[in-house]
Amino acid sequence: MGATARQGSEVSQDCDLQSHMKRMCEAVASRANDERGRDMSMKVTDRKKSTRVIDRMAEEVVVQYVERNGLPLNVLSEEAGLIDRGFEETLIVDPIDGTHNAIRGIPFYSTALAVGKGDTSGVRCGLVMNLATADTFWASKGEGAYLNGSRIRTRRFAETGSMFLGYIGRHTSKDVDRIYRLPTRFRALGCASLELCLVASGKADAYLTLTASSDYGLHVWDIAAACLILDEAGGGSVIPTDKGYQPMKMGFDAEERISIISYGDRGFLEFIKA
Amino acid sequence: MGATARQGSEVSQDCDLQSHMKRMCEAVASRANDERGRDMSMKVTDRKKSTRVIDRMAEEVVVQYVERNGLPLNVLSEEAGLIDRGFEETLIVDPIDGTHNAIRGIPFYSTALAVGKGDTSGVRCGLVMNLATADTFWASKGEGAYLNGSRIRTRRFAETGSMFLGYIGRHTSKDVDRIYRLPTRFRALGCASLELCLVASGKADAYLTLTASSDYGLHVWDIAAACLILDEAGGGSVIPTDKGYQPMKMGFDAEERISIISYGDRGFLEFIKA
Repeated sequence: MGATARQGSEVSQDCDLQSHMKRMCEAVASRANDERGRDMSMKVTDRKKSTRVIDRMAEEVVVQYVERNGLPLNVLSEEAGLIDRGFEETLIVDPIDGTHNAIRGIPFYSTALAVGKGDTSGVRCGLVMNLATADTFWASKGEGAYLNGSRIRTRRFAETGSMFLGYIGRHTSKDVDRIYRLPTRFRALGCASLELCLVASGKADAYLTLTASSDYGLHVWDIAAACLILDEAGGGSVIPTDKGYQPMKMGFDAEERISIISYGDRGFLEFIKA
Repeated sequence: MGATARQGSEVSQDCDLQSHMKRMCEAVASRANDERGRDMSMKVTDRKKSTRVIDRMAEEVVVQYVERNGLPLNVLSEEAGLIDRGFEETLIVDPIDGTHNAIRGIPFYSTALAVGKGDTSGVRCGLVMNLATADTFWASKGEGAYLNGSRIRTRRFAETGSMFLGYIGRHTSKDVDRIYRLPTRFRALGCASLELCLVASGKADAYLTLTASSDYGLHVWDIAAACLILDEAGGGSVIPTDKGYQPMKMGFDAEERISIISYGDRGFLEFIKA
């Protein structure tokens, strides 16, 4: 296909795209389940870095799907980086979000897929599937957010009964030690995309990854799909900076990493103020 | 049945008991799944306290099973407290460990059952089932620990690639802010029994609940089964006190609450020293 043909083409209907994206995730789940007997945690040596068998396998499944079905999309993925196939739109892929949950028997890991152009403000649809349960979150811009076909919405924030989700670990910023003590319950579940979807579906109030250094934090594939799902469910996300909260916006860039505060109800931001 | 008959009787074979305990969990899972359409988070008013529908339902299933099958066991459970049926041995029940995971769509919640007499040192078998996946952990004293029938063992501690699990929240003691930054990965999964079983199966290195006050912390039903499973897999548990670590031991007492450090490899205790 020449550049002219490629420029004009687009997966025109969101519902076609949704169906393709769902089938990609099902293909990953099917391969992951097939191979459950194998040691998924065995490392393989890659050009750039050691990656885990399960991540690489999942990425191959998605890239092959895009190629075999002739989808007019570039691919940006955790392992491969950008595969520029000459199109306007890009499929942003987290092949397995929560790899360490997958290989340790914690049934909370996903494939996360988003399609858009430019940066995260240009994402037009996102799909996140829990590979262990097949629960599927979906949103297309302006059309709302859905879990297994049913509309989902965030909940109003209330301190009593509140649940925050977030990253806890060696790169956590000091302020998290205060914030994690605020809600009734706190969980660190190790899968940002699914944690954001829990906020989107009104099951939790917020998700936070606050790191002490910009060398750590989330990549665009961790959040591109789920942040649209959360927006469409009535919530939002901000990036905390020295000058206050900035609107969440990331390029389609494999190197960029951010801290994020995502909420179902904007009132949450007042609540966590020091 | 009179008191004399009751004193002598005992479920003689551990394998019979295992089969009964597994069927109790399956009955809870089946009821929980039946009722998934209903709002499990709706509160009901109890004599003592508000409890959640799912906890009460699960407890009823277990107590009815014990009565219908004439099992020679007292029952100590989270909701009902001690049901003294006049026997020597007691079934310690956490009907649903991780209620908030269950009602929020996080597939990581269990029923945990232990049988023994006196205190936790007299527990002779324990079973923990993940109700969302049916993964079943089992141990009987001196006979090893098993996941779905396969022997499990803890792993040797190494800092690189380490994963700690634990409680994070408003009652966490200050020292946790240091400890959670030590491993490569930290998770707060909200279900102590399954988290202990991940340590037992060599998928994580340690589980910690360290609270600032003895008004909070774990109950005996949270850990009676899983601590035996962990011991039988090669690990252990201690209670941190001002005078150092004490051996883990709790009475069959609905009021007692403890902080705990559980490990796969005793070398972990050296590693976390301040």
